[in-house]
Formats: sequence, C-alpha cells, structure tokens
Amino acid sequence: MKLASLKGGRDGRLVVVSDDLAWCADAAHIAPTLQAALDDWAEAAPRLEALATDLAHEVIPMMRFHERMAESPLPRAFQWADGSAYVNHVALVRQARGAEMPESFWTDPLIYQGGSDRFLGPRDAIPLADPEWGCDLEAEVAVITDEVPQGADRETALAAVRLVMLVNDVSLRNLIPGELAKGFGFFQSKPASAFSPVAVTPEALGEAWRDGKLHGALLVSRNGTALGRADAGADMTFDFGTLVAHAAKTRPLAAGTIIGSGTVSNRDADGGPGRAVAEGGVGYSCLAELRTVETIRGGAAATPFLSYGDVVRIEMRDAAGHSIFGAIEQEVARP
Amino acid sequence: MKLASLKGGRDGRLVVVSDDLAWCADAAHIAPTLQAALDDWAEAAPRLEALATDLAHEVIPMMRFHERMAESPLPRAFQWADGSAYVNHVALVRQARGAEMPESFWTDPLIYQGGSDRFLGPRDAIPLADPEWGCDLEAEVAVITDEVPQGADRETALAAVRLVMLVNDVSLRNLIPGELAKGFGFFQSKPASAFSPVAVTPEALGEAWRDGKLHGALLVSRNGTALGRADAGADMTFDFGTLVAHAAKTRPLAAGTIIGSGTVSNRDADGGPGRAVAEGGVGYSCLAELRTVETIRGGAAATPFLSYGDVVRIEMRDAAGHSIFGAIEQEVARP
Repeated sequence: MKLASLKGGRDGRLVVVSDDLAWCADAAHIAPTLQAALDDWAEAAPRLEALATDLAHEVIPMMRFHERMAESPLPRAFQWADGSAYVNHVALVRQARGAEMPESFWTDPLIYQGGSDRFLGPRDAIPLADPEWGCDLEAEVAVITDEVPQGADRETALAAVRLVMLVNDVSLRNLIPGELAKGFGFFQSKPASAFSPVAVTPEALGEAWRDGKLHGALLVSRNGTALGRADAGADMTFDFGTLVAHAAKTRPLAAGTIIGSGTVSNRDADGGPGRAVAEGGVGYSCLAELRTVETIRGGAAATPFLSYGDVVRIEMRDAAGHSIFGAIEQEVARP
Repeated sequence: MKLASLKGGRDGRLVVVSDDLAWCADAAHIAPTLQAALDDWAEAAPRLEALATDLAHEVIPMMRFHERMAESPLPRAFQWADGSAYVNHVALVRQARGAEMPESFWTDPLIYQGGSDRFLGPRDAIPLADPEWGCDLEAEVAVITDEVPQGADRETALAAVRLVMLVNDVSLRNLIPGELAKGFGFFQSKPASAFSPVAVTPEALGEAWRDGKLHGALLVSRNGTALGRADAGADMTFDFGTLVAHAAKTRPLAAGTIIGSGTVSNRDADGGPGRAVAEGGVGYSCLAELRTVETIRGGAAATPFLSYGDVVRIEMRDAAGHSIFGAIEQEVARP
C-alpha cells in the first residue's frame, strides 16, 4: 500500500496511491489525515488496504496523482529523529571538518532530535535566507512507526515500522561546527526537511525491504547531473530496528514517529572514500561528502554548496525502472 | 485567560479555567483541542476570552477543575525546544561534570530540540526503568508560540507568545555525559517532560509577565521539603523574545511551538554558587545544581538523584498565595 497527503490544510488530505503513482483515491472517510490513520492503525490499515485494492481494480472514483500536489506524507509530525546509520558518511564528514570520530560510533547508534513542526513538501522550494550558511542536501531513508514501548528490543521495534519514505534532510553546513561545539546538538543548522511524495508499507516494498533495511540505489542529482546512486541497503551499520530501539531506550515512542537513516553512503570497492558517478563510482548522497573527498584528494573542496536556482532531486526506482516513492525535487530559493 | 486540556484522547479536551483554578468550562465548541485553537488563534482566542468572561460571571455551565484530571496543556506537540537562559545554572552543572563552558554562552543563546511526541501529565508518575540513570527534575518556565516567521527579531518573536506554563524537564543525568560526548545533543537522556496543569496568557499574568520574562518565585520541593524558590525573573540572561528569535533564525516556527527557559537558577547574593533554602538561600531548581554545590563545598555530592517513591512538586504562587498555573506533582515509579 502507498499513501500520500495532498496539499490542503496543515496536515494535508490522506489519499491511497496506486503502485504506479498515476492514480489516487480519497481516504478521508477512513482517516482525514495520515496522523489520524497512524493514531488508530489497527483499525485504519485494513480499511486503507481494501481501498488500495479497490483502486488497483479501478472500481472506485479515482483521481490523477500528481507528485507536485503532495505534501510530505506527514506535513508536520510529533517526532522526527535522525540517525547516522551509514557510519562511513559520519567518518568522512568528520574528517573534513577536522573532528575526530570515536570508535564507539561503529557499535553505538547516533541519533539526534530533529525539528518536526513543519516539513517542506517534496516539490516545495528550499527557503534559504543566506547562501553563506552552506546549504546542503542529505538523501536518506526514513520510517514512520506505530507506538513503540519503552525498552523495546530490535525485533519489537522493527515490527512497529508502518511506512517507509525518502528524505532530503536539509543541512546548513557552515552553521554546524559552531553549533555542535556548544554541545547541545543541531538546531539552527537543521531547517525543515522534505519527504518523498509517497510513503510505502514494508509489505508493498517486497524484497527491497529486508533485514530492517531498504535495498536499492538512491538516485541523487543536482541540476540534472548525477551526484549519487549509493545502495541504501549496503554499508548501513545499524538497521531500522536497531535505530528505533535505540530511540525507545528511555521512553516510549508515539505513533507517527519518524526515524531517519542518516545520509546514505557506500564505501568504495577498494575501501577508499568513494568515487564520483562520472568516474564509475556510486557517488555521494550529499555535497559535504563530495567536498570531503575533493579535500582528501586535492587539498581543497571544489564543489560549492547549494545556492539560488540549484535543483536537487532524490528518487529510488524498482527493477523495472518505476519510481517507488515519487521524487523529491526542490529548488533553492529566497524565503 | 487560563486554559487546560482534560484527560481524554491523545490531545485532551480543551477547557477554559477560572482564575482561581476551581472551575472550568468546556471549550470544544470553539476548538476541540489546544492545538486546534493555536492553529487558528486569531479566530479562537476572542471566543475563548469571551467564554472565560462568562465563566468568571458564572453564567454558563461549569465543572469543578481538578488538576489531577489535566494533561499537559499540549499533551503532545509539534515542537518542544528548550533553552538554557539561566546561564548561572549551565556554568554550575558544567563545573560539576568537569566540562568547560565557553564565554560565548553569556551572549549566544543555547537551545536544544526536545522530544514532543508525548508529554507526561502534571500529576502522572515519572516512569523510570533504571534508577542508575540518575533521574533529576528541572523546574523551568515555558511559552507556547503562534507562528513565528523565519528571521523574526526579538520584538516580533515576543509578540508571538500566546501562553505561559511551568515545566518539569525530566533529565537522566548519568546518561548525559556519554550522550553529549557523541556530539549530537540529548536524546536518551531527555525522556518525556511534564507541564503545569494550566497555561496562562501573558495578559492574564499582569505584572508577573514583563521584559519577556515570568517574574516570581518558582517553588520546587522533593518529598515535601523545599528544594528551591528561585525567582524566574532574576538572572535570566536571555528573555523569551530572544530565545524564540534564536529558534527562528533559519526556519519559521509553527503554531504550538513550545520554547523552554532551561532550569531556573539565581546567583547567590554574594556571587557564590547559591545556598540551600534551609540556609536562607533560594535553593535550586534541580538536584544536579544542589549536588554541584555540595561537590564544590564538600568534595562530593551528598544528595541522591530521584528514585522510586520520590515525589517532586513545582508551582508558582501570586502575591495573594494563589497557585497561578496549578502544580506539577509527580512520583517516580517503575514504567
């Protein structure tokens, strides 16, 4: 089953979307919003599944689904916490800013509390007040959970995953060092994120969802040029079950909690920092990683951060080449 | 005007509460929940004010208001961010754990993104799985804002404050050093917070709300013994206008955003670390600060952190001795 929230009101209007993303059906009679469905998932999910079946059989009123009409599946959420499961990325980015990475990062998941009061729509502009802030994209995978009890183990946590999405976790790189030096984590350096137009149940992902990970190439581009195609299922040190259990160690998680993977990153085959797509590598899911590799190789970063008019695109396709979640496609603009 | 959310459903039921906290009137015909009222404040506020006037005149159906029947005013919120406006507290607590405090902390506000998916009710138990985590209370003031535009100045930010509350920002002290060392801020070390039974508009606070600060002694006790009575209006380095503007530097804030002051803390008259209430001082709004003073004076902390059966209470009274926000009163219990 695929779900989306059409623009309209602060929480959008819940629709069921066809597997090919071409059609959708209003789900307001089941739950007006995705949060309402998640608040009562045991009741709502079977009815939404039945609606999805009816949509597939074209036996109910249906509308064309346009990705540009979608909000993020949860236009605002009660919780968004982002992990750093691709430890390769963390090691590279820390290397670039001259910060050491503790060895424990390979065994103890890292997660930060993100802002969730308002997400950008998947085709909304990224509002940037000052290009000097060093605006970057971060292409990631995220899950939406049901309630998770405090102290849940990995299996319980993984079983609470209800939906899977893609994310652009917008980051203001030049604000990060100063902010992290203060010791309380990100705040100003992490403005609103955007999620893919469609959220998909683990069941509907089939073989692409296994071992608590989403498998497949995460296609990332800037201004139409491929930046990355790393496999989200490779080099993910902590699977989503482990990330969700980590988040629930000292408190329960409410239904509608979004947990992110952190920037997807693959090691190079030779163990090196990874090569660009143009050089035959899988490239990078954020500019910081590319700039790091440039610094390691050439002594200085050559690729600039995002500025006005730049367009970033994040997508994943199935074996037949069909978009699974729809595309996040955002232009950087003045607020 | 005073507002509360009676227990019932995930978001509670909005009521208007009489100034003396004795009576309340159902506000569901105006807005079913406080979040709904905040989402449409310009429309809802005048109608809620009219209801409050009718309640004061006893011309509408009214119910007894019992603080134990209240959820936190927002039982869950789209944003909870907590500042550290009483820099005296930060300096002392850092001193206790051997961490240096940068001089910039006196000029650049510190704020962290907190978890907001589920708050504890003001009389709910504090669920603690492991007393070794070092459970502490933190008595604070918090505001709920309307929408705040990105880049708002202090005055604009302050004008967006809609409601004022008290908070118990529960902290797991023994998890903090390890978590902060990882560089991404608090997560496991900050389980659910609890807010006062009642949220009050700045207008209804009269002279107690001025210069962007709440003035008055914050009464904090443990097991009936006074722990603190620090003045929330004194030694607050950053007022709420400054804190909210800081939070809105790179992104707008949505209606219903909660911004906290951080643990209230007053310097001692002689400039020292502060004396206990029993010694004639204003005491402390958290155990960590008391333990710090014990360490500074005697070489080791003597007061233990909270454990099962301990009861903490946080309240503020007006000049006539009447409770303004109702009391947060919580017992520590097994989950």
